[in-house]
Amino acid sequence: MNEMKKKSDVVIVGGVAAGPKTAATLARRKQDIVITVFQKEKEISYGTCGLPYYASGDINSFEELTKTSYDFPRTPDFFRRSKGFEVITGAEVTDINREKKTVTVKILDSGETFEHEYGTLVLATGAVPNPPPFPTPDSPNVRPFTRPGDAIGFRQMAEKGKIGRALIVGGGFIGCELAEAAGSLWGIETILVEKEPQLLPYILDPEMAAIAEREMKRQDIEVITGAMVEKIGLDSDGNPVVHIADREPVAVDYVFLCMGVHPENALAKKCGLALGEFGGIVVDSHLRTSDHDIYAGGDCTETVNQITGRKLYIPMGSLANRHGRIIAENITGHAMEFPGALGAFLVKVFDFNVGAVGLSESAARKAGIKYSEVLGSFADKPDYYPESKSMTVKLVYETETGRILGLQAAGSGDICRRIDTMSALMQSNATLDDLLAFEHGYAPPYAEALDPLHHLAAIAEARQMRGVKFIGPGGDFSSFGSDTIWLDVREPAEIEAEPWPIDEKHGKLLAIPLNDLRGRLDELDKKSKFVIVCKRGPRSYQTSTILNQAGFTDVTILSGGYQAAQG
Amino acid sequence: MNEMKKKSDVVIVGGVAAGPKTAATLARRKQDIVITVFQKEKEISYGTCGLPYYASGDINSFEELTKTSYDFPRTPDFFRRSKGFEVITGAEVTDINREKKTVTVKILDSGETFEHEYGTLVLATGAVPNPPPFPTPDSPNVRPFTRPGDAIGFRQMAEKGKIGRALIVGGGFIGCELAEAAGSLWGIETILVEKEPQLLPYILDPEMAAIAEREMKRQDIEVITGAMVEKIGLDSDGNPVVHIADREPVAVDYVFLCMGVHPENALAKKCGLALGEFGGIVVDSHLRTSDHDIYAGGDCTETVNQITGRKLYIPMGSLANRHGRIIAENITGHAMEFPGALGAFLVKVFDFNVGAVGLSESAARKAGIKYSEVLGSFADKPDYYPESKSMTVKLVYETETGRILGLQAAGSGDICRRIDTMSALMQSNATLDDLLAFEHGYAPPYAEALDPLHHLAAIAEARQMRGVKFIGPGGDFSSFGSDTIWLDVREPAEIEAEPWPIDEKHGKLLAIPLNDLRGRLDELDKKSKFVIVCKRGPRSYQTSTILNQAGFTDVTILSGGYQAAQG
Repeated sequence: MNEMKKKSDVVIVGGVAAGPKTAATLARRKQDIVITVFQKEKEISYGTCGLPYYASGDINSFEELTKTSYDFPRTPDFFRRSKGFEVITGAEVTDINREKKTVTVKILDSGETFEHEYGTLVLATGAVPNPPPFPTPDSPNVRPFTRPGDAIGFRQMAEKGKIGRALIVGGGFIGCELAEAAGSLWGIETILVEKEPQLLPYILDPEMAAIAEREMKRQDIEVITGAMVEKIGLDSDGNPVVHIADREPVAVDYVFLCMGVHPENALAKKCGLALGEFGGIVVDSHLRTSDHDIYAGGDCTETVNQITGRKLYIPMGSLANRHGRIIAENITGHAMEFPGALGAFLVKVFDFNVGAVGLSESAARKAGIKYSEVLGSFADKPDYYPESKSMTVKLVYETETGRILGLQAAGSGDICRRIDTMSALMQSNATLDDLLAFEHGYAPPYAEALDPLHHLAAIAEARQMRGVKFIGPGGDFSSFGSDTIWLDVREPAEIEAEPWPIDEKHGKLLAIPLNDLRGRLDELDKKSKFVIVCKRGPRSYQTSTILNQAGFTDVTILSGGYQAAQG
Repeated sequence: MNEMKKKSDVVIVGGVAAGPKTAATLARRKQDIVITVFQKEKEISYGTCGLPYYASGDINSFEELTKTSYDFPRTPDFFRRSKGFEVITGAEVTDINREKKTVTVKILDSGETFEHEYGTLVLATGAVPNPPPFPTPDSPNVRPFTRPGDAIGFRQMAEKGKIGRALIVGGGFIGCELAEAAGSLWGIETILVEKEPQLLPYILDPEMAAIAEREMKRQDIEVITGAMVEKIGLDSDGNPVVHIADREPVAVDYVFLCMGVHPENALAKKCGLALGEFGGIVVDSHLRTSDHDIYAGGDCTETVNQITGRKLYIPMGSLANRHGRIIAENITGHAMEFPGALGAFLVKVFDFNVGAVGLSESAARKAGIKYSEVLGSFADKPDYYPESKSMTVKLVYETETGRILGLQAAGSGDICRRIDTMSALMQSNATLDDLLAFEHGYAPPYAEALDPLHHLAAIAEARQMRGVKFIGPGGDFSSFGSDTIWLDVREPAEIEAEPWPIDEKHGKLLAIPLNDLRGRLDELDKKSKFVIVCKRGPRSYQTSTILNQAGFTDVTILSGGYQAAQG
């Protein structure tokens, strides 16, 4: 370590995402500015979000996560020489004196402490894992998954073949990513336990999460939802035993505790900065805290939901990096605002891609917005193109104005494009009409002539303007009694391959292929209650037109068809 | 064929894209509406854009292109029974009597003609290939590539192994797609000749097109640009011989004539409808022609460029389908406008994806808009992620306002997402600030924490606000004389693997890795003219900061680095 400076123009606490990004931008903007980053851990500027992919073996060595694109390790020396700022690792900031404008730093190896003066202070302390609400043993094999050591510890054991069976507590992003890491690549028998009745709770609606869950099950992950872990103990060999309510104890070799994170706010709290309802540091749109000389960014802060205007805690590396740049701009006197977040996310679940932006149906309900929703299943490319894959998408929009509130998507197809597109459209409060007017890039290797997003908007308009009735796979089926007719209009071969799993209390099945329907209308009673089923939805839509035009009065389309409900 | 009706509420001329889409939407909207589609060819509603992929063998049988997603062929019977409208194939509309509101139809097989009355007429006559401006022989092996027969004819010969060598005249979309079809999948020795000095002229800037050209050459396609075909003849065996100016004649087995298309306007012209500067049928924003009772859509019409407000001819299946829906809405009394086009497109060139939206630099120049441009090379995912791929993107924006004018992208990476995102942003006249505020979906298997689009916006702001100097691989290098220093800041191993091809008249090379630069500044003369080279651009940007802060006065960054210029 170089001789330590006693004073910096800008002191940054935290060296993972928002911290180094702030420092690098500042150093480029201002000549001779003195910047010091204090980082508690030894590791710095590693790709946190890449940890599951190191654990899985997708990435060879941990060092890859800390390297630049030209294979150069991001060490303190690198930051000093290439980027022009100081990074002190293994250095914990234990206190902030806002009056004197100093931080107290403790060098963890030596125990030495000292004061360091700042002109401006930036807090980028990140997040810490939520503690389990049940007893856990003190074991290296029962641990969260947020720090490099967690990933390295797991991988070392996996490489030695010491993990036959693993259990993940929590079915959020990290839980889902780790299910793939453990189950797919190391062939570990993997159990995922989630206390809510669905995977990815709070961010996806149940029927969309069910798509991810079915994929996990196809990949031999045992998914147990709606299950409370009550205790984790150790057996006589020191291996973890997980006690789940109303179940036999489960003996495993490794337990991941993935129950989310919360803002690391200890320092901010200690020095009296304003904290919000999620415990995040409160910042204004310029990312300034309640102290004029202190900024904060990344996972230690709360943000505003751009749709509802409410506070939101959304720890994401992408937002942290954007924060870093904005803080640097503001420090150098170029006012720049962070507009809040729409909550775009993506997560890979084995061969499926899952993502969303904006509000789910449940989030819209919770926010008290009067919404409608439509859902559909589509091919991401023309069906005739060899690499065509499926996806199910769900659109939530404000009923009265048609303003788009959110999109959810899941499937093997290219959902990223659609999430990003929708995020871009929502940035300027797009409506259904704007979505219909969206011009996508088209060629058969990439897309259909009309994009799934166009079809979704068209379905929404059919619902809005022409009263076409839809029910999604997550809908309330209670109004369909045993005399409801589920009219399956697929071809016989399709039905044989993938029969619709009828629940007798909600009706009986009848199969008439769409192409025969007009000639067989007299077999049907116009006064019956119908639910129309096909593979993805378009044939049901066509069927409902035929039936409605023929004077049938109670016709509902199963949105997304078999694909969305079972695929 | 059913007994032919004499009269329809809506008559549609053309059964490929806009026609059937109009008909299907209308039939769903209006009970008992009588719709007849007349289609000159036997084939109907085939995926025109899929023809190259049938030719290539990617798609097994031609029938795939005419099938629904549930494997049901789109025959006239299918349209009647499932969709509720009549389609008469092999039926050419030869005349329109606007006063009597009738069309004259000729059944091509029998020669029979008859009149058919319309309430509303929709012209969806599509496009026809531009005739070659040079003599061509009458041979089935020298032909355009726009109709099913063209694809079927080529494939039959290819399957029989009768094509050893093929030549494509024209390096636009279809020409590029066919180079892959012939060269990659059938292993045919393939030559592509383009009269302009670049591939994909008019829609891409030269340095972006050069990326596609390099990929073609890597895939063993012989690309000859800036070359005029003067004549195509036949040798004594009846095989084509292509005569190119200033070259030896080229004997081949097959010639594709891919010199673009123009609107099929014969009918419209004959009955006196207004035509535009590109020969397309003039329509208003509701897609109504100069006759109140006649609409037109798809490739036979012209549209408006949403950025320049000028007329634009852009034949695209995606726009045709959107037209179809809009025409149907307007016919049923629900006013709906087509906003014009941004010109989004994608084209697959072997393992590279190429696309754009909005104005290229040359288009902006031509439109008289004061623009600036920035270019960068990026990984589409984190470099540590195994499937990370490269892409080069170029952004053109209005200098004064920062309004985004266009994006071009090429590379093996996922450019589709970025084209669609930018199209969505441009739909509401996004600026650089809006681009910085874009919230993308982030997870390592899909993207970096900051998207290439964010980086592009940041580069543009560096240029705008801080006067950082950039030159792209397509820039004017004439101001760099032999005393210019090209400072290559890559690591020695990178330089050895991919040396920068210095042109001595534009300067001399000097290699100092970025990480050593601060310690070796005294080796450099602050008054020299510098161009900084790295792999993709970020290190050059960092270098320019270091040099500028150290008092160097003439530092230019090579945008996109080695990757954009040579990758």
